[in-house]
Amino acid sequence: MKEFEYNAVKAEFEAWKGQGLKLNMARGKPSLEQLELSRGLLTALDFDDCVADGVDARNYGELAGMPCARRYWAEMLDTTPEQCFVGGGSSLTMMYDLVAKAWSNGLLHSKRPWSQEKTVKFLCPVPGYDRHFRITESFGMELIPVKCGGDGPDMDEVERLVKDPQVKGIWCVPKYSNPDGFIYSDEVIGRIAALRPAAPDFLVIWDNAYCVHEIRGDYALFPDILKLCAEKGNPDLVFEFASTSKITLPGAGMAVMAASEANIKHMSRLMDAQMISCDKLNQLRQVRFLKDKAHTLELMKRHADVLRPRFDAFLRELDEEIRPLDIARWTEPRGGYFISLYTAPGCARRTVELCKEAGLVMTGAGAAYPYGKDPEDSHIRIAPSFPALADVEKAAQVFCTCLKLATLEWQGSECEP
Amino acid sequence: MKEFEYNAVKAEFEAWKGQGLKLNMARGKPSLEQLELSRGLLTALDFDDCVADGVDARNYGELAGMPCARRYWAEMLDTTPEQCFVGGGSSLTMMYDLVAKAWSNGLLHSKRPWSQEKTVKFLCPVPGYDRHFRITESFGMELIPVKCGGDGPDMDEVERLVKDPQVKGIWCVPKYSNPDGFIYSDEVIGRIAALRPAAPDFLVIWDNAYCVHEIRGDYALFPDILKLCAEKGNPDLVFEFASTSKITLPGAGMAVMAASEANIKHMSRLMDAQMISCDKLNQLRQVRFLKDKAHTLELMKRHADVLRPRFDAFLRELDEEIRPLDIARWTEPRGGYFISLYTAPGCARRTVELCKEAGLVMTGAGAAYPYGKDPEDSHIRIAPSFPALADVEKAAQVFCTCLKLATLEWQGSECEP
Repeated sequence: MKEFEYNAVKAEFEAWKGQGLKLNMARGKPSLEQLELSRGLLTALDFDDCVADGVDARNYGELAGMPCARRYWAEMLDTTPEQCFVGGGSSLTMMYDLVAKAWSNGLLHSKRPWSQEKTVKFLCPVPGYDRHFRITESFGMELIPVKCGGDGPDMDEVERLVKDPQVKGIWCVPKYSNPDGFIYSDEVIGRIAALRPAAPDFLVIWDNAYCVHEIRGDYALFPDILKLCAEKGNPDLVFEFASTSKITLPGAGMAVMAASEANIKHMSRLMDAQMISCDKLNQLRQVRFLKDKAHTLELMKRHADVLRPRFDAFLRELDEEIRPLDIARWTEPRGGYFISLYTAPGCARRTVELCKEAGLVMTGAGAAYPYGKDPEDSHIRIAPSFPALADVEKAAQVFCTCLKLATLEWQGSECEP
Repeated sequence: MKEFEYNAVKAEFEAWKGQGLKLNMARGKPSLEQLELSRGLLTALDFDDCVADGVDARNYGELAGMPCARRYWAEMLDTTPEQCFVGGGSSLTMMYDLVAKAWSNGLLHSKRPWSQEKTVKFLCPVPGYDRHFRITESFGMELIPVKCGGDGPDMDEVERLVKDPQVKGIWCVPKYSNPDGFIYSDEVIGRIAALRPAAPDFLVIWDNAYCVHEIRGDYALFPDILKLCAEKGNPDLVFEFASTSKITLPGAGMAVMAASEANIKHMSRLMDAQMISCDKLNQLRQVRFLKDKAHTLELMKRHADVLRPRFDAFLRELDEEIRPLDIARWTEPRGGYFISLYTAPGCARRTVELCKEAGLVMTGAGAAYPYGKDPEDSHIRIAPSFPALADVEKAAQVFCTCLKLATLEWQGSECEP
């Protein structure tokens, strides 16, 4: 283990503070260069060509979305148009709305609305996406962490937990998981599809947020969970989600909810009270711009070309500065938007705090755990996508300094009587 | 009363049937000529000019909407930007989401979420908007009809009913009410603002859907309900809604929820679990196209020029064919999207049924009443906006024939022993 010494690191830290930096790596936001890739989006739509499949995108109607948008997503997710309900700009909102409908009305196989259950528990593979956990938390559900490794959630634990009828569902980001960047193994996916939960209305929320979001290498084929569930006799177990927020423009894309036709029918009946139709004009705009899966994958290669150097820059700095010290480990994802870094237990919160002092805003430590509490205080989510490349390089340097300082402070406190 | 005789009317009806018409007046949809007025919308936004007030409309963030969109709505509704939360394309969805939040979490002054109340009752001025009633119905609330006259809801009745703490709110379309086209009087509005409901979390949903939607005459000034409520010591009583769905393009516009700053803060906290931000790009597109209130009112005059002949055509036919017979009465609105027609009791459903047989789809009879049940079976909503003018003229003729035939059938059945 390479030597590093408090006074030198502290001096480094003070030097960063003196620079008055304003860097932000808190969220998985695309950079300006990535936005630039969607320049053509705003002119992709011709006012005189807004009718498709007999549906005028400029007027009310067609609750489940433009037929061409449903076909687009069916190809993207390897499912059928009838299983795709295309919504507004945000898949997160569609997930929230699904949970909200379970709460107020119940799902297809619910005996009663979840609001009328004494307790509702929800499984949260950790580390995970803070906004997922917040949705279920906002309904007062009890969040149960389940360890998520390189293959996906600990399925022995999941299979044990779903024997409790109060356990109503699980959050999954199966490809390039947020924040670890793991891809669930075929075995884990198969076991999820074959689950036999005690709750008849158990819900797998399959957030395929990074379905075509490779950073390195070619597009990685991924199994269609809907088909797998159907094969295992569980056709209504899963709702899959995706969106073009990180394909075209964040918040201004189109999201999809894919599920069995029986689920889509049930949800459509409930959603008919919530909306007349989503922004079909924007759906048509997206389809005109993205065309099909092949064309979308080409665009994603250009996104990767923008993202890769940012990931590389951060990882290179970690390799040079931290690996020799052996004070942390981290993931090296092939896709998605994040790097997970694990400090020595008890050092994550302090590292993030020091970063903030030095002018670098990171995702709050613990955010990837239910209720924002990482029991080990060890995990830090790194989101290198948004800043300019030079700023990512600087941010990585600042981060390494702060990580070293936090670790030294902790080692010091450990040595104290 | 002019004579009209069964065989002649029946022959008229059969002649219409023989024509194989396909006419639709079911919903308040803008016509193609109205859509044409928003041709400029699709090119209103320049990719290089998407940052406003320091907010990049092309990326995540700014939950309550683009600052310029909040200012736009503040001017439109005579309120403040801080009181305006600008959302996606649909005000209906925002209303649903508000009720859903009351259900799952509670409003600012709720003692508990509404889902934990034994019974929740909601006041429904009738006739009213079917989609409003369906929202509250979808949560299993008890819908209580309240008569709505030319001045607005029967306030003696409303003031009596709100003494029941289970009565949690009221639906209002205060300007050009759907479907009567009435404007609430200043006295009624004042009494609504001064309500002292037993429920601390009583909710006035003020759907100002037709706030600038005059068909005849100049823009009619309308009091700001938020200010009135605040003056009466009821700052948090009301949530106001509006959208540009019938100003630009249906479903592809921008909606607003206006409320006290305390309410906006409470709702923002809850909505933060549901979304990162709405489609700000579309908000900016709308603002760039509509500019400000003065420019919007100019556009609305052009909408009125398209709508007025359709209303006139239908009203002219009613005047010529029905008034002399004295078998129905109807409203002659100065704005909004509908005409209300009242048949003799017991004739509405049959009239709509006959229309359908003759190839004219009307809004289902009873739709304007809770649970779709008009106790008098007398009310029909006429939506003349969508068809081409020539089709509106034909539809009016078909309608008058069917109304006459239904009335004659009913008179005949009344005379039978």
